[in-house]
Amino acid sequence: MSVTSEATSIWQGSLAAGSGTVNLDSSGSGTFEVNWKARSEGSSTTTTPEELLAAAHAACFSMALSNALTSNGTPPESIQATASVTFKPGTGITGSHLLVNAIVPGLSPADFDRLANDAKTNCPVSRALTGVAITLEATLA
Amino acid sequence: MSVTSEATSIWQGSLAAGSGTVNLDSSGSGTFEVNWKARSEGSSTTTTPEELLAAAHAACFSMALSNALTSNGTPPESIQATASVTFKPGTGITGSHLLVNAIVPGLSPADFDRLANDAKTNCPVSRALTGVAITLEATLA
Repeated sequence: MSVTSEATSIWQGSLAAGSGTVNLDSSGSGTFEVNWKARSEGSSTTTTPEELLAAAHAACFSMALSNALTSNGTPPESIQATASVTFKPGTGITGSHLLVNAIVPGLSPADFDRLANDAKTNCPVSRALTGVAITLEATLA
Repeated sequence: MSVTSEATSIWQGSLAAGSGTVNLDSSGSGTFEVNWKARSEGSSTTTTPEELLAAAHAACFSMALSNALTSNGTPPESIQATASVTFKPGTGITGSHLLVNAIVPGLSPADFDRLANDAKTNCPVSRALTGVAITLEATLA
């Protein structure tokens, strides 16, 4: 079975002077403002395509690592994963860095490294993002 | 100048029985629940990595098309873009479909098609998502 998830953006006007919104249609979780100033200069209040991409990547990686750890006989107590997605105006999205900290009873650091790297390479969002460099820094708590 | 946007996911337990959250760290726009049931079966209340990816794609495409239309001397009155991202458990993310409707005074349908296709190919999120098929259906209102 396939699942299709939808989101809609409405934009008015030019890139520099205009602005828009983006709505999470499938879940109804929210509508957010977007604009070029936040995207090209950073913002502590307005989301960006890169922040939304980071959220997708962090959540997907966490699920993939949880699955790998459980299959290994060592299910995680918790996984914290932060994705940092970098955008350079005029160039594009240059990378997604995953910073991961996990509590996994009974697992060696070597096995954790191996499984975390596998999740980095093979989680569905990583496999979709083949156009950007994905890096990983993962530690056991 | 580069801009880095961050989001953090916290996951507890196994993939099937556990659950998590994802937070938009950079903008503080919200924290959302995520779980495998919503992702693998669909949900009208819980977001998924694919819905967040769709939001990133829809917003990025809208900005790119707005910029292209403005450069063409025909800035848009409005652009509505819905991204539909499909996930197949066990296979991965199989595609992102962009359904676009725009109001652009003074533009021919042929020029609109050309600029919309260019934005589909070259918007930064499309260029990051080289691992999935991206399709476009765009009409002038």
